[in-house]
Amino acid sequence: MTGKKKSAQASIEAMYRVFTVPEAPESTLSRIDQNISRNLAGFLQEHIVAVERDLSEVEKNFADSAIPEKPVFVSEQAQFLLDKLVANSVHTASPAFIGHMTSALPYFMLPLSKIMIALNQNLVKTETSKAFTPMERQVLGMIHRLVYQQDGSFYRKWMHDPRHALGAMCSGGTVANLTALWVARNRAFPAEGSFRGLHEEGLFRALKYYGYEGAAIVVSKRGHYSLRKAADVLGLGRDALVPVDTDDNNCIQTDALRDKCLELQKQKIKVMAICGVAGTTETGNVDPLDAMADIAREFGAHFHVDAAWGGPTLFSRTYRHLLRGIEKADSVTFDAHKQLYVPMGVGLVVFKDPSLASAVEHHAQYIIRKGSRDLGSTTLEGSRPGMSMLIHSGLKILAREGYEILIDQGIEKAKSFAQMIDEQPDFELITRPELNILTYRYCPEIAQQALAVADELQAEKINTCLSRITKFIQKTQRERGKAFVSRTRLEPARYFHFPCIVFRVVLANPLTTAEILEDILKEQRELSGEKGIADEINILNQMANAVLKQNQKEAKHA
Amino acid sequence: MTGKKKSAQASIEAMYRVFTVPEAPESTLSRIDQNISRNLAGFLQEHIVAVERDLSEVEKNFADSAIPEKPVFVSEQAQFLLDKLVANSVHTASPAFIGHMTSALPYFMLPLSKIMIALNQNLVKTETSKAFTPMERQVLGMIHRLVYQQDGSFYRKWMHDPRHALGAMCSGGTVANLTALWVARNRAFPAEGSFRGLHEEGLFRALKYYGYEGAAIVVSKRGHYSLRKAADVLGLGRDALVPVDTDDNNCIQTDALRDKCLELQKQKIKVMAICGVAGTTETGNVDPLDAMADIAREFGAHFHVDAAWGGPTLFSRTYRHLLRGIEKADSVTFDAHKQLYVPMGVGLVVFKDPSLASAVEHHAQYIIRKGSRDLGSTTLEGSRPGMSMLIHSGLKILAREGYEILIDQGIEKAKSFAQMIDEQPDFELITRPELNILTYRYCPEIAQQALAVADELQAEKINTCLSRITKFIQKTQRERGKAFVSRTRLEPARYFHFPCIVFRVVLANPLTTAEILEDILKEQRELSGEKGIADEINILNQMANAVLKQNQKEAKHA
Repeated sequence: MTGKKKSAQASIEAMYRVFTVPEAPESTLSRIDQNISRNLAGFLQEHIVAVERDLSEVEKNFADSAIPEKPVFVSEQAQFLLDKLVANSVHTASPAFIGHMTSALPYFMLPLSKIMIALNQNLVKTETSKAFTPMERQVLGMIHRLVYQQDGSFYRKWMHDPRHALGAMCSGGTVANLTALWVARNRAFPAEGSFRGLHEEGLFRALKYYGYEGAAIVVSKRGHYSLRKAADVLGLGRDALVPVDTDDNNCIQTDALRDKCLELQKQKIKVMAICGVAGTTETGNVDPLDAMADIAREFGAHFHVDAAWGGPTLFSRTYRHLLRGIEKADSVTFDAHKQLYVPMGVGLVVFKDPSLASAVEHHAQYIIRKGSRDLGSTTLEGSRPGMSMLIHSGLKILAREGYEILIDQGIEKAKSFAQMIDEQPDFELITRPELNILTYRYCPEIAQQALAVADELQAEKINTCLSRITKFIQKTQRERGKAFVSRTRLEPARYFHFPCIVFRVVLANPLTTAEILEDILKEQRELSGEKGIADEINILNQMANAVLKQNQKEAKHA
Repeated sequence: MTGKKKSAQASIEAMYRVFTVPEAPESTLSRIDQNISRNLAGFLQEHIVAVERDLSEVEKNFADSAIPEKPVFVSEQAQFLLDKLVANSVHTASPAFIGHMTSALPYFMLPLSKIMIALNQNLVKTETSKAFTPMERQVLGMIHRLVYQQDGSFYRKWMHDPRHALGAMCSGGTVANLTALWVARNRAFPAEGSFRGLHEEGLFRALKYYGYEGAAIVVSKRGHYSLRKAADVLGLGRDALVPVDTDDNNCIQTDALRDKCLELQKQKIKVMAICGVAGTTETGNVDPLDAMADIAREFGAHFHVDAAWGGPTLFSRTYRHLLRGIEKADSVTFDAHKQLYVPMGVGLVVFKDPSLASAVEHHAQYIIRKGSRDLGSTTLEGSRPGMSMLIHSGLKILAREGYEILIDQGIEKAKSFAQMIDEQPDFELITRPELNILTYRYCPEIAQQALAVADELQAEKINTCLSRITKFIQKTQRERGKAFVSRTRLEPARYFHFPCIVFRVVLANPLTTAEILEDILKEQRELSGEKGIADEINILNQMANAVLKQNQKEAKHA
């Protein structure tokens, strides 16, 4: 062999080894692997740096746009990932990380995920998934039953029926919502007479054939942004996502909903779907689903419930009633990587009527042929991993009782935290928790007193100031790395619906304790005393004083 | 404490343990975990049963639709999964599993996946992903550069620019194609004058405003079914996916493409996108991308290339030229869980022009705010896992050279297998490999001789018979569990475009050897001699004999 040929042969052999020889037990990667298995919390604690680095700093480690020509050693890449990626990742499992919907995971999820990845099944078709397909159908059946509570014979008939699917597994809630609305849209304009259906002929001809000027999805203004995205993707346009006002508890006003539907009807716009929210992303409130279902029926609209967050509340005998009416929904979105405590990347939608999914059925010659059990014929996605195995295991190992405890504990913790905030003179609860989400802000006593008597213009000024302070505290706390709350913008009725930035807290991590919550408030109070925000605090105090003084004056005059 | 309270407290503590105490090293799950780390191939070999069980049998293990009330032990569920799920899963990593696009994975992917899952980042926003966001941006940049080969300054300017994204990470190729066409659709009908753009006002008003009767996506008839699905989802209707005839090599006929576009134009249908295929799913052929790009420009259409399969061919200095013209595409789809050898569940689309993604930009109040670096503002999906870490590691550890070897080996293996088939008198190659995919069938010599002289009606009868035989052999071979080829339906020009069922082979697993391929042919030949298909084989022989006899007679007469 020539030198060139020899080196080519050596490269090929090296490549072969990459696929056949496991990492040696003492290799960097194996050590990390074992470390994670033995003590995940310790691993995360040790490797994730607490203090946030500026992203522009972090970007320097990921600046090269050229794919390297020559391989680097696995150990080198492993060390790089530890130092540059893991170190600067977010400790989403931390009990003080209560700003988003990502929690600690049950321990068994980790080794189970490894099995899933090792098996590398593809759920699009049974040829690459075999038993994973019936398992996924069972998971869809179980969640369907949790929502719709049909009897055993219903599931015996439909769960494994190759021509039907009780739902669709998705990569997350966004695709689940999109899938539901895709079904709704296609069903709103079915084949009739010479018209072969929207799914074949498209929206333009559908509206012309049925004599409409447009089609709308109606939802409370607290609906998730994925619904607006779905309106865009589906070709309806973002205008077609019609928001309805909410009451003081962030729940849709049913009168306003009916009025809006009537108005749309008059404009010859088809109310294609009404969406109820079971756990708004920002405030965790649940729409009056029962009443919404009736309105949907009245207007012949598909009734979808986005229960991405709140769905698992159905596990709780104590709080299940909050979702009353969900069983009337034509479709319901669940996110598994939220309150089913499964790793990132899986959600699902269930359909009340097993025939619904057929509205979006697609086939191909080499897979998902007609009559096959393949689940790929009614999912938006094609190739998909076996994540349902993790849901299956959660439902078995935690069981209804386990999930009930998680739900109940979260809601009760939120209630205690709300009370804790109420008891602090310098914090203001903005939205009281219905589920396990609440919002609040730092608001010195004097500002609260001033707001209580302020007119609209005065309140606007004080709130603008408070929003700046809230933003500063939230950002700085995140950067310090001990704790994390998120922030959003709400329009509290008591402040003339003026947009206010608030802290948002999600209490789904079972490891979050009352002490941690107390510490978070304490740190926030301390941050309000920092130099960086001192000017703003001064202005706030002056404004509040002025408002109070003027108010006293007016009171005397009166 | 009362008994009830005590038991409640015990349940809560048990729940707490699930989140804090790792599986004991000697637990069933830990043993599986270690087993997989040490000897994945052995684990799969040992636990996956070779002989296929009927799915209706397997379904019995997944028949209960009720979520269990009481928790089961982790070990119990682990054992259940081993016995009922793993045992009846598909050995996708097997070198004899050459029917689909799922291969063995490099060993390091497994421990790396574990790190990814342990970190449980959410890429929708930097608040839940930090360094993962720049890393993902780098991955998008690297693939962008592989395709478009812009210079370093281009990437320094755009790769980490918070207001732009060079692409979108997705759960797979279907969502990648959908995202590209979503961008194309919105850009085909932009805001102008009083019209606020399709993304706001929807397709109906867009077509009315611009004076069109419809919008079409034009692609060869070998295009992936996800494109038809996208046409449906996007509200264009499946009719809007306009197929164009292919030549004998399954590549689009550019003359026919131009004619089709002219025809659409005449019908006042906007040619919204032209899609080139770089690696057709069924036959692995590459469209003439360069010529297609010119036609797309001529009609002002978005040019998308679906390189879900063939994209990584760009790593190969030898075969890169097959994709000439891909750099003219406005968008290109890559699947990472195919020829980037990453576990199931990740694909991506890159955009030539960094501003393209803005056509589908969405924002919300609590995340992906304007000006943030959050990648979630331009992805179809919301919450997403950090799968790009696995692509990053593949690109570093295998590097360009490693991927080149994999690509080159696959293509060369396909060529040798084609030759092997050519040399067998009783097998017929249907499509010659351009990349690493080919199709063929079992076809006794006499049948081949008869087909060579048969008229259309005779050929139809013989091919119908051969299709039944092919289907039998494919199904039986799969059920026996030693090897797996897939099947599809093609319309070979030499058989008057009559639909024929053929074996389809994908040679991407580096562990597949010539011996394995020989064995597959051998088993198929043996299966053709089985009782279950004997009648069909007899009929075939009779038909072939009759055709040959008649032909001889006619030859004499002539």
